[in-house]
Amino acid sequence: MKTKTELIKFNQGLDLESGARLNTFDLMVETYGELNKDKDNAILVCHAFSGNHHAAGKSSDNEALGWWDEVIGPGKAIDTDKFFVVCSNNLGGCSGSSGPLSINPETNELYGKDFPLVSVTDWVNSQKLLSDYLGISKWHMVAGGSLGGMQALQWAISYPKKLKKAGIFATATKSSTQNIAMNEVGREAIRKDKNFMEGDYLNHNVKPKSGLKTARMLGHITYSSEDIMDQKFGRKFQDIKSKIEGTVDYEVENYLQYKGEKFSDTFDANSYILMTKAMDGYDASFSSNGSLEEVMKRIKAKLLVVGFDSDWLYPPKRSKEIQLAAMNVDVQCSCVILKGEQGHDSFLFASDRYVKIIKGFLDSK
Amino acid sequence: MKTKTELIKFNQGLDLESGARLNTFDLMVETYGELNKDKDNAILVCHAFSGNHHAAGKSSDNEALGWWDEVIGPGKAIDTDKFFVVCSNNLGGCSGSSGPLSINPETNELYGKDFPLVSVTDWVNSQKLLSDYLGISKWHMVAGGSLGGMQALQWAISYPKKLKKAGIFATATKSSTQNIAMNEVGREAIRKDKNFMEGDYLNHNVKPKSGLKTARMLGHITYSSEDIMDQKFGRKFQDIKSKIEGTVDYEVENYLQYKGEKFSDTFDANSYILMTKAMDGYDASFSSNGSLEEVMKRIKAKLLVVGFDSDWLYPPKRSKEIQLAAMNVDVQCSCVILKGEQGHDSFLFASDRYVKIIKGFLDSK
Repeated sequence: MKTKTELIKFNQGLDLESGARLNTFDLMVETYGELNKDKDNAILVCHAFSGNHHAAGKSSDNEALGWWDEVIGPGKAIDTDKFFVVCSNNLGGCSGSSGPLSINPETNELYGKDFPLVSVTDWVNSQKLLSDYLGISKWHMVAGGSLGGMQALQWAISYPKKLKKAGIFATATKSSTQNIAMNEVGREAIRKDKNFMEGDYLNHNVKPKSGLKTARMLGHITYSSEDIMDQKFGRKFQDIKSKIEGTVDYEVENYLQYKGEKFSDTFDANSYILMTKAMDGYDASFSSNGSLEEVMKRIKAKLLVVGFDSDWLYPPKRSKEIQLAAMNVDVQCSCVILKGEQGHDSFLFASDRYVKIIKGFLDSK
Repeated sequence: MKTKTELIKFNQGLDLESGARLNTFDLMVETYGELNKDKDNAILVCHAFSGNHHAAGKSSDNEALGWWDEVIGPGKAIDTDKFFVVCSNNLGGCSGSSGPLSINPETNELYGKDFPLVSVTDWVNSQKLLSDYLGISKWHMVAGGSLGGMQALQWAISYPKKLKKAGIFATATKSSTQNIAMNEVGREAIRKDKNFMEGDYLNHNVKPKSGLKTARMLGHITYSSEDIMDQKFGRKFQDIKSKIEGTVDYEVENYLQYKGEKFSDTFDANSYILMTKAMDGYDASFSSNGSLEEVMKRIKAKLLVVGFDSDWLYPPKRSKEIQLAAMNVDVQCSCVILKGEQGHDSFLFASDRYVKIIKGFLDSK
């Protein structure tokens, strides 16, 4: 599998849903496999909240494997011997695309907290410009899980003729009240970190690491599930020698401390806030006064919707809502609820049935 | 209903499960109704995590109604025309009983972060000393919800002959891994507040309000439920005039901000950490190597276990575990799962069926 990473500059600008405009922007893009002559073997993969353009493989020994490496690669569910796979870091992210860590070309200063609010639809619009740049007039599939699944659904709604299939995994047509509430707790932890400085931390050479850590600890609880945490950690006490913090009693606390700390080393706090606000703000049916059917009438693509039984962030009923609306407006849609060993995160892992279902969907007419 | 509030001093001391000892301690106690001549109409009510001794009524116009006022009072489920009701603030709390806000009589300094770790069993032992002080040799009932329900269960285990009935509501025999994980996120938010000062904030005349607020916001999500939040707030936008913080978009965010802020005005951070550690640490079966049946064999009291269908903190299956173990070791036990309009918090509210069930239980032989 060839892996190519490229920063692509877009000078035509982008009008955002918020009313703001980016006159220019960059997307950090990674591609795998080769685009065929007819340019009809391309798959766009959209990343979830804390993911980025690095979806599969690794380009150096030091780099970690991409976030969907179990699913993308030679002979894998999304087979890079057959398909040309594209993944870009979302606008507002912190892995190379224009976002809070970038220089605002209008002011020559860091965007920081002033990077404009972006939405799922804005991401889809930026990815449309990316497909134009790549000369891809129709994706064989646009796919993603979680926040990435929202983008796949929105692609099918916004650009019905520009994709053949959409893979919509472990997601929902809108964030629930509880989803918003959980995100707000994470944001609150970040905003109240003494190093947040009302979002201006970059100019003070500090970083709200503690807030990011707390937010991520909560995130991890929502990505797992009650049963999975119980099976994995139960009420086991943490071995005293491997305690990350002296305050830790149980293994599950140590695990969350470890995961939170690691995340806070790399992620940007303004991006965290932007990304969760985009997630909260997504409602596929908003433009049609809450009628999902009305908005889904536009869809021409064939849909594969996959939910996981242990996912309590976007539980199976959220997947079934998409299927029901699709049925009612004659959109081709298969919905499968799989056993998920990893809660919400199950969409990241290549279980046998999941792989078969994705392969079958990609091979179907 | 007469309401009496009294600070009772105990000079006989208390050995704690942690191995530490309190040579003296105080309990802030509230009582309602009158103790009869035979002293057999007394009910001990145990409070949940953020509750205190003020369970019912109010002694002045400025005071808020007690936390279980819907259930305790003349003619109510726990009828103060018939019963003498006692409620004490738990050791380690912040409402008058010995805790982090008290002066350590050994050093004449504030306990603060040095108040020893307390457990559910320690609370039960301190309440046993309270019953001796009051001359009550056998409670007609010991009852409570959530962390209070754990105390009611532990009473039946620790002092089988000292209570006739136990009312065990919206609780579990032990905290689940997810319960512990959620509490750890709250504690992390508090510990990383710049004003926490490693628990020594009282000596610096500051208070880790932001951390307490974040912790409570998360708490409120766990006390409610996905469906209830959805019905109450949905995805409604907050009216701009009544936004508590400029960062708020949705009503649910505003609600959590409001509730968190209010809580952080009154609660003590070291108490928060102590109380949640006690909750995490509770495991009724710990002393019998995980066999709940083994430990429940000791119980002589009749049990009423009530769970609520919308409670996801201590879901109905946790109530049923108690019933199953009781059945297997011939302990008299009724278990009812009620429709709960308020998630975990449903145990606080007097629905018709709940009231009937409690009344029936109190009147039974």
